[in-house]
Amino acid sequence: MPKVRVYVTLKPSLLDSAGRTVRDSLDKLGFHEVASVRVGKLIELEVEQFSEGRVKEMCDKLLANPVIENYRFEEAE
Amino acid sequence: MPKVRVYVTLKPSLLDSAGRTVRDSLDKLGFHEVASVRVGKLIELEVEQFSEGRVKEMCDKLLANPVIENYRFEEAE
Repeated sequence: MPKVRVYVTLKPSLLDSAGRTVRDSLDKLGFHEVASVRVGKLIELEVEQFSEGRVKEMCDKLLANPVIENYRFEEAE
Repeated sequence: MPKVRVYVTLKPSLLDSAGRTVRDSLDKLGFHEVASVRVGKLIELEVEQFSEGRVKEMCDKLLANPVIENYRFEEAE
């Protein structure tokens, strides 16, 4: 069954408070080389048949919030 | 500044209740071709210098929970 990987990320202009928290925690743990962190989602779908149009529709309707998020996807093995 | 993408996924043996909810919602929206959904995290880091060992350490210590999650990472552009 085809697998699709969808990557959802917050738009770059928006403040990512989860990412900021992770960066601060990494800093406290001694990872001072980390300048910034952004946290997004990785959504893996198993579909009966891969259709770019259908996956795009899923992203626009449910998987991502187009107002604040970007997404991209790819078919995987 | 080098970018690193870290992908964190729930181990396949574990029930992914968020993924299940997304699958049910997709089904209700008419996307009956989706057999299963797994929801993971995509963490993007900007680091001063890429070191595989250091990123592995970050994953083991903070970014992933090795008891229930798998991770992989790659340097990006």
